[in-house]
Amino acid sequence: MRAAVFIATSLDGFIARQDGELDWLVDPDQGVEDYGFGEFMDSVEAVVVGRNTFEVVRSAESWSYRDKPFFVLSNRDLDLPDHLRDRVERRSGSIDHISQYFDQRGVDRVYVDGGATIRQFLRAGLVESLTITTLPILLGSGISLFGDVGGDITLQLAHSTSFSNGWIQSEYRVGDRP
Amino acid sequence: MRAAVFIATSLDGFIARQDGELDWLVDPDQGVEDYGFGEFMDSVEAVVVGRNTFEVVRSAESWSYRDKPFFVLSNRDLDLPDHLRDRVERRSGSIDHISQYFDQRGVDRVYVDGGATIRQFLRAGLVESLTITTLPILLGSGISLFGDVGGDITLQLAHSTSFSNGWIQSEYRVGDRP
Repeated sequence: MRAAVFIATSLDGFIARQDGELDWLVDPDQGVEDYGFGEFMDSVEAVVVGRNTFEVVRSAESWSYRDKPFFVLSNRDLDLPDHLRDRVERRSGSIDHISQYFDQRGVDRVYVDGGATIRQFLRAGLVESLTITTLPILLGSGISLFGDVGGDITLQLAHSTSFSNGWIQSEYRVGDRP
Repeated sequence: MRAAVFIATSLDGFIARQDGELDWLVDPDQGVEDYGFGEFMDSVEAVVVGRNTFEVVRSAESWSYRDKPFFVLSNRDLDLPDHLRDRVERRSGSIDHISQYFDQRGVDRVYVDGGATIRQFLRAGLVESLTITTLPILLGSGISLFGDVGGDITLQLAHSTSFSNGWIQSEYRVGDRP
């Protein structure tokens, strides 16, 4: 399996405020421009998030993940509301274990979301591409996208586009580890 | 006075490794492309750095700051080598004190460099523009460009360009504090 990341951050690299708030991520063009998210969703076969991201996602007004198989990495049981019971599956265990599980199911390209989960997949060398949308704001503190990834990771820029609202979207391919 | 920032970071927001090393910042196109640095230098009247940045700069092979008045913010004496004695001036005191000093000398636009110093000027609301060149590499750890800046700072994207080596340069203007 190969993991793909599609995420928005503040210019200082935060994906949420410390309490998970996304108030700074409001887009005046919402509903008009989807920043390539639809096309990205077309390209993945499943979604994997960590526990913290799931807690944000489960209380969101709408479900953005279509009918893609949706996995939550957690060692604790999920308390699933009725409308998510058939949609969401919990997986536990090591990252190797999880990647083997996808390989066995023939799932090739997986959308991986949430800071800690993304870093886990990066450390394991399983991330193929990173699409990062950078918003023109400094938050000063919050939940970081990046952190320890077990040494340098060299990337190749595939493309970079800026939007009229000042958002910059860049897609990187992950090179081989040195 | 108004401060202008012109700096390169890794994709995960580091301006140097923890020990100050810039080995990851080597450009194969060096000498051919200056990434707008010359034009930027034309636009500033003086340079201000903190103690840590000065320690890197003083041991660099060449002096990149032309004959612009060059100030080091430090409360401790600088041990200046002969060739820098007439070029470099130490200033101490609060950021208000320093900005008043520039105002009195009629210095309008100042190039501010180094993570801690940039954050000091950001917190004081003195930064007018940020030109950030993002390199396609994750370092995982190091000296951060950003950090606590005293609350949200909203920016406007002036322009963003990508280079064939995968570097992305974006210039932001700093909006009013809410």
